[in-house]
Amino acid sequence: MSARRQRKQDSSVTTWWCERAWLPHGLTQGVRIVVGEDGRIDEVTPGVQPGDGETRLRGVVLPGFANVHSHAFHRALRGRTHDSGGTFWMWRERMYALAARMDPESYCDLATAVYAEMALAGVTCVGEFHYLHHGPGGARYGDPNAMGEALREAARRAGIRLTLLDTCYLSAGIGVPLEGVQRRFDDGDAEGWANRVSALADDAFFRVAAGIHSVRAVPADQFADIVDATTEADGARRPLQMHLSEQRSENAACLAAYGVTPTRLLADHGVLHSSVSAVHATHLTPEDVALIGGSHTSTCICPTTERDVADGIGPSRDLTDAGSSLTLGTDQNAVVDLFEEARGLEMHERLATGDRGRFAVSELVDAMTVYGHAALGWPEAGRVEVGAFADLVSVRTDSVRTAGVLPEQVVMAASAADIDTLLVAGRPVVQDGRHLLIEHPGHMLVEAVDQAWG
Amino acid sequence: MSARRQRKQDSSVTTWWCERAWLPHGLTQGVRIVVGEDGRIDEVTPGVQPGDGETRLRGVVLPGFANVHSHAFHRALRGRTHDSGGTFWMWRERMYALAARMDPESYCDLATAVYAEMALAGVTCVGEFHYLHHGPGGARYGDPNAMGEALREAARRAGIRLTLLDTCYLSAGIGVPLEGVQRRFDDGDAEGWANRVSALADDAFFRVAAGIHSVRAVPADQFADIVDATTEADGARRPLQMHLSEQRSENAACLAAYGVTPTRLLADHGVLHSSVSAVHATHLTPEDVALIGGSHTSTCICPTTERDVADGIGPSRDLTDAGSSLTLGTDQNAVVDLFEEARGLEMHERLATGDRGRFAVSELVDAMTVYGHAALGWPEAGRVEVGAFADLVSVRTDSVRTAGVLPEQVVMAASAADIDTLLVAGRPVVQDGRHLLIEHPGHMLVEAVDQAWG
Repeated sequence: MSARRQRKQDSSVTTWWCERAWLPHGLTQGVRIVVGEDGRIDEVTPGVQPGDGETRLRGVVLPGFANVHSHAFHRALRGRTHDSGGTFWMWRERMYALAARMDPESYCDLATAVYAEMALAGVTCVGEFHYLHHGPGGARYGDPNAMGEALREAARRAGIRLTLLDTCYLSAGIGVPLEGVQRRFDDGDAEGWANRVSALADDAFFRVAAGIHSVRAVPADQFADIVDATTEADGARRPLQMHLSEQRSENAACLAAYGVTPTRLLADHGVLHSSVSAVHATHLTPEDVALIGGSHTSTCICPTTERDVADGIGPSRDLTDAGSSLTLGTDQNAVVDLFEEARGLEMHERLATGDRGRFAVSELVDAMTVYGHAALGWPEAGRVEVGAFADLVSVRTDSVRTAGVLPEQVVMAASAADIDTLLVAGRPVVQDGRHLLIEHPGHMLVEAVDQAWG
Repeated sequence: MSARRQRKQDSSVTTWWCERAWLPHGLTQGVRIVVGEDGRIDEVTPGVQPGDGETRLRGVVLPGFANVHSHAFHRALRGRTHDSGGTFWMWRERMYALAARMDPESYCDLATAVYAEMALAGVTCVGEFHYLHHGPGGARYGDPNAMGEALREAARRAGIRLTLLDTCYLSAGIGVPLEGVQRRFDDGDAEGWANRVSALADDAFFRVAAGIHSVRAVPADQFADIVDATTEADGARRPLQMHLSEQRSENAACLAAYGVTPTRLLADHGVLHSSVSAVHATHLTPEDVALIGGSHTSTCICPTTERDVADGIGPSRDLTDAGSSLTLGTDQNAVVDLFEEARGLEMHERLATGDRGRFAVSELVDAMTVYGHAALGWPEAGRVEVGAFADLVSVRTDSVRTAGVLPEQVVMAASAADIDTLLVAGRPVVQDGRHLLIEHPGHMLVEAVDQAWG
């Protein structure tokens, strides 16, 4: 019974009945969920039969998924970087070619289609690691945040929540100036970055947060200004992400320039914190693991990207055991399927260690949902409980992929194609596997990718 | 223009037009494919517009996929082995519990649904590694091949081709007798195995072949009888598979008992041969790689299983370079998606080596199609060319997964859910992503898995 129960008779209240719902204490049968007009959950009643006027959600109902680390424009690289040897350098060259072409309009079109694909995959909130700030050559747009605003609009059209991880990106390497297309990323210094970002405003579906691209791209003497900019008057900190030790070459460069690992450098400058997410965290020393875990910094693992770009396998289990919450990201969006990311987390651990069962299924679900939303600055999301956003994902259990699995292990078998219904703050965005706001996301993607490549 | 062209006016001839088809020399636009009444391709004409009476196949048309190594009954383990620590030993215990329950009728029901799932994933031929031969305690069925015949019937119902890799399984370990449920596998010795198998007959969609479970399960002094049984009067050999060095413990046991690696043991007994497939081949010495490659033994990689059961990553690229053709298998059927297996092959190499582009896309397609069919004893399948079986898979290029990819790289993005149409020997088995012979494979799987667990 809820303190918000009085709303139940309100005509704007909606009631859903779930055959099985993933509540904070585990998968539960026969759950009634009452949603208020503010899109939050007013009541959760387990162990009940469906009543009149209640809409059934089939299969297994999970909290909405958080996609903690995305580069939306990389979606246009999918299936376009595996020819001619398919090296990392070719991937990088095409990525920059694409970055050179985007403008606020084409970026909005592409990101709308990408976020629609995410909605179809059960994502209720995406963290966009955004550094494509300025026009060609670094020229400011009329609104210097035009690109960030394009992403806000894209998420609005696709019906999902967005945390804009507006990212500071000042150098091409330690002591190496930005050049060519990279000049589009350049705010001059952390102060310039902070001034620009300060003009962005939150809304009900959009929160402003921050990124340090990496220790390669931001000098350590700029870190303090960035942390300051993310710190509220009451001392609370907005989310902050950085790529961390994705490749060994970053560690080598950092050791050469600063004499310490990237993790140690961040720790020494007061960056590590429970509001911060280290992305990838692949090549760490035991001391790095202890620093991340001890500061309760989250770690965002992006398994489908880490295998695609041949990063290697990071110490995910060790990070968890040290005190870091794990979250998941689709990163380059070569795959948009949070189930695949969750399984990748577990499967890569199995490949690296030779042991099964490195993570409990519930730990994978937490990474997909509650920890992910918290890392994106939405602590009121990612749980099916009173007061939380009514973000619900129903997963079919009768597809050829999910048929016969135990409902509590559906995450180990389902794919994005098995998402039946998605509610974002109580609003149906996907139903019967179809996006309700965008008629044909596949066609929209074809057009947007074509447009992006010109 | 084809020698079989005269059939074109035959009323039983069917003509298909492909927007893009994967021909032996590469992806080709506007391809007319004429299929004769015998289900073979009579004509392949590239660079043409669609004509009247031609049925269009949308997206990218690939040759049918070969699933070279399957344990159909393991499908009932999907999403049921990740609780309570999810160790390998728990997986193994449940696998045996399941094996103890199957009978010819329930096995036919389950395998029919599993093979229907495979058809929906584009599989035109499956290699079933079959050792569940006898009743409880090892009692012979009235027809001692009742279980193998159940598999033949299952594939027939599902509309796909089957190679029965009837597998000799004589011991629980080197010098360790079979016990409990394992007695169902026991033919006493290779001669007993060969006598039973000799009663099985090929048909147009079914070929009899062989398996040596592993060097753990078959004493080396039995190998010659098995090779003899697979050798035809003209000296040609039927396919033969064995699990090889899947785990380090097998290597250790083999070295202790025989003083050589499993690969060396097989080589010394004349087993390695171009008709043979080594399955997994994960933990090999450089000499093992040279022996496999030098004998042109194929290697069947099962990436989704190898990561699930924590085997590790084998030297796939090295095997290819040494002369081994790679093929793919879904093995335990925790995943039934040949695209995922093909990507797994490449991605695991990337994780192990830190390099992208370890295999060309065309090598992955060859593994999925022509090499796979050859390894299963169907050299007339797996290619879109005159005289080959008309096994065609059309893959949608407008789903959210495949939209925007280059058609020649669709394998790097597609999933089983993107299969639109499947022809097996010219017969449509899947259309619009729906199985034409089985109304709801998902429901059939739910029932069959429930029945399997009782």
